[in-house]
Amino acid sequence: MTDPYPLHPLLRERWSPQDFRTDHELDATDVATLLEAARWAPSAGNSQPWAFVAARRGDEMHRRLTPHLLGGARRWGPRASLLLVNLCHLRVDETDYEYSEFAMYDLGQAVAHLTVQAQALDLSVRQFRSFDRDAVEALLTVAPGWQVATMAAIGVPPQAPAPYAVQLPDGRTLPRERRPLQEIHAEDP
Amino acid sequence: MTDPYPLHPLLRERWSPQDFRTDHELDATDVATLLEAARWAPSAGNSQPWAFVAARRGDEMHRRLTPHLLGGARRWGPRASLLLVNLCHLRVDETDYEYSEFAMYDLGQAVAHLTVQAQALDLSVRQFRSFDRDAVEALLTVAPGWQVATMAAIGVPPQAPAPYAVQLPDGRTLPRERRPLQEIHAEDP
Repeated sequence: MTDPYPLHPLLRERWSPQDFRTDHELDATDVATLLEAARWAPSAGNSQPWAFVAARRGDEMHRRLTPHLLGGARRWGPRASLLLVNLCHLRVDETDYEYSEFAMYDLGQAVAHLTVQAQALDLSVRQFRSFDRDAVEALLTVAPGWQVATMAAIGVPPQAPAPYAVQLPDGRTLPRERRPLQEIHAEDP
Repeated sequence: MTDPYPLHPLLRERWSPQDFRTDHELDATDVATLLEAARWAPSAGNSQPWAFVAARRGDEMHRRLTPHLLGGARRWGPRASLLLVNLCHLRVDETDYEYSEFAMYDLGQAVAHLTVQAQALDLSVRQFRSFDRDAVEALLTVAPGWQVATMAAIGVPPQAPAPYAVQLPDGRTLPRERRPLQEIHAEDP
């Protein structure tokens, strides 16, 4: 494949696996390094509307979180080395005032930065919303104004990464698919 | 400085400059490569709720956009090699139905991926909201359900990047600041 706009390998080889190697474990330093990447992400007025709960396979939080996964995440989620709960600072304390117009946007950025750091550590990230949010929030006793927004499963997929490719659990490789560049890009619409 | 959790250089040296070198220009291939990074970002159900209008210093769109910048962006925005308008797919056509619960979150991710690619091209990105949104939307004739969410100024800052540092226009260097890691990280809250 000719590639007229080659991306940095950390972006080119990133994908969201649906399976993880259960013989891989993350140590506490790896977890802190991932969160450090999220911590240094940019945000509107440096509002930093993010917080994270980390659960490593085998620990108590992992045991308490995994029963609340839904759909396909019930299968691959518990196999990941790390489950991350990504919380967003939506409101000011108990009020209806927005904490930041860009709270969700900036949480997305922070998780994206974490994902790039994961790639640099030879880890892959699959973000998901297929979990019982009420149950997870009850488990964590979330602070006023905060919401559990997404989760991420992080670990090592069974197959080595390949550019712009999705590797299926049955061993097949599919191309990743996106809208064409000209559809998202308007020089002068 | 000892660094217990070293980040990949693309993240460690990223910052949001408030000045840009006006002797630097981006070519069309650079612009396409940046948008290519955004295009390959992950999104909920591959919903890809993003689109971008690119304006390079000197072109017609740049001339039409810069009068609508506000505050500090009036000074440094026009100096950037590229201004990017980041659009979010919020609603389904003319309805009140959300296009995706994670539209803003995923646009944030896409801009973050673009920012990492910019770093790889020795470019820096400053995202901002200090512009007249109504005027910019009128200029672009935005499709139903879409909204101009943020803009980004992209170019080469006057000073070389340094880890975790902000370089002020007057030549001073300040540390970038974030909440401490233990404040955003709860193993078992």
